[in-house]
Amino acid sequence: MLRDKLIERFTVVPGSKVRLKDFPTGFDEADEDLRRLTKNKAKEVAADVLEQNRAELATAQEMLYADDRYSVLVVLQAMDAAGKDGTIKHVFSGVNPQGCQVFSFKKPSAEELDHNFLWRYMKSLPERGRIGIFNRSYYEDVLVVKVHPELLDSGNLPDERRGRKFWNDRYDDLNNFEKHLHRNGTTVIKFFLNVSKAQQRKRFLKRLDEDDKHWKFSAADLAERAHWDAYQQAYEDAIEATSTEHSPWYVVPADDKWVTRTMVADIIVRRIHTLGLRYPTLPPDALAKLEEARAKLEAE
Amino acid sequence: MLRDKLIERFTVVPGSKVRLKDFPTGFDEADEDLRRLTKNKAKEVAADVLEQNRAELATAQEMLYADDRYSVLVVLQAMDAAGKDGTIKHVFSGVNPQGCQVFSFKKPSAEELDHNFLWRYMKSLPERGRIGIFNRSYYEDVLVVKVHPELLDSGNLPDERRGRKFWNDRYDDLNNFEKHLHRNGTTVIKFFLNVSKAQQRKRFLKRLDEDDKHWKFSAADLAERAHWDAYQQAYEDAIEATSTEHSPWYVVPADDKWVTRTMVADIIVRRIHTLGLRYPTLPPDALAKLEEARAKLEAE
Repeated sequence: MLRDKLIERFTVVPGSKVRLKDFPTGFDEADEDLRRLTKNKAKEVAADVLEQNRAELATAQEMLYADDRYSVLVVLQAMDAAGKDGTIKHVFSGVNPQGCQVFSFKKPSAEELDHNFLWRYMKSLPERGRIGIFNRSYYEDVLVVKVHPELLDSGNLPDERRGRKFWNDRYDDLNNFEKHLHRNGTTVIKFFLNVSKAQQRKRFLKRLDEDDKHWKFSAADLAERAHWDAYQQAYEDAIEATSTEHSPWYVVPADDKWVTRTMVADIIVRRIHTLGLRYPTLPPDALAKLEEARAKLEAE
Repeated sequence: MLRDKLIERFTVVPGSKVRLKDFPTGFDEADEDLRRLTKNKAKEVAADVLEQNRAELATAQEMLYADDRYSVLVVLQAMDAAGKDGTIKHVFSGVNPQGCQVFSFKKPSAEELDHNFLWRYMKSLPERGRIGIFNRSYYEDVLVVKVHPELLDSGNLPDERRGRKFWNDRYDDLNNFEKHLHRNGTTVIKFFLNVSKAQQRKRFLKRLDEDDKHWKFSAADLAERAHWDAYQQAYEDAIEATSTEHSPWYVVPADDKWVTRTMVADIIVRRIHTLGLRYPTLPPDALAKLEEARAKLEAE
């Protein structure tokens, strides 16, 4: 089936060598069968699949809440203007906000820098029965920080070495953190929204053209664009080191927003379906108590 | 206009004496003009108003986020089965979860009890630009705690007196807290979902009848029902003491879910509209920087 094939295509096989250029950024290169559909037809199908998945996501979240054994953590990473915010809005609007928490991580505060780097993320993990969404995540500590290692200076880390071992230790920390989450019932679903440099340029220019989007553009975005290649390398290293059986990375095309949103929703819904959620069954003594309660109410 | 009249009817005038029995719990007693519409027609109109308000709420939340000066705190209080969870689901599904945070407060932990009673709520307030929803709130500290004053024993409070002064001091703390929030840009919108004792009985029995709702019923719910009158009294005292110009209480009928949801959405949207939200305007030097950025991108 086309959807299965696409998901397989975008999944980073644990232990494999990662080259981002092997992953499509747009519809055109995504898949032969998809291309055969023609872009307009594919877009129509994608809209249906997204609509269906939004409804399924709302239901899945209710089951997650009732079941109360698992939580889901969705990690969204990408270059600027790849569509993280839009993906959250279009995939998750419709989900009961009572079961869904979004956290955006900004530049760490002085208090946060005075702790281990995972501290602030640990505090924001979703409760059992909820979906947590990290709009940027602990991966920034091996991405922006790796591209700008001077950021480590403010952290007063005991280890002055910043070489290969330092970063490998961080990947190891991340893997152990996610293993711990997995063991404790949190399913981690990690997306890299793969946007091309040309598409980022287009979207930046569009933001500059629209008066009500001005405020979304910051000169810092352009400064980071100058480090494009270093970021791609940092992403390749991080994704390669941290795609695991229980928490694989998905590298999803981000040049066409409808492709991104449909694939992200499809992958999340499928991953939740594998959890085998069910309504809690009550033990006999609890059922007996319910019968007592009913008798009391009926006698009122 | 009918909607204005209804909102006025459900608003607790600051300084007025509060008797809950003066507020309708159902459609039938809510309003003469409403009744003249007939229930089916009113239900239809309400569904349209809700749909329209859900869309407006999604837009209002985006403006709130862009404007980034205000936040909104929605406080939901009610007896069990009055429809708090359903109201959150039906009013706020559709809002971008990135701009919306729901907190449900359970029995305080040992760590929480070792702090002042407002501590745990302060930590969960919405960030600027967001809507926070408290599913139960700091009002529980003058409601369930007032009905069961033995709960104070676990708190190791310095003051042993539990009389009128103790509770008046707490109301004063709540008013000062909300005044502080108001001064700092947080709009507090407080709802009491007013359900009748008969309707609560019906809903409890319905939960007991439905296999997939069993788990939602706890014997403790029935135990609290036995304190119905004490709760009504505690609500009257609290609402009377804390309905203020900037943070009035709304006592909304809760025997008909469609009435509750439509009124809650309508009130929230109107309150947000009074904030005068606008897109940020950039100062001239920031605009000049955007032009520089555009030139650089275009030259690539």
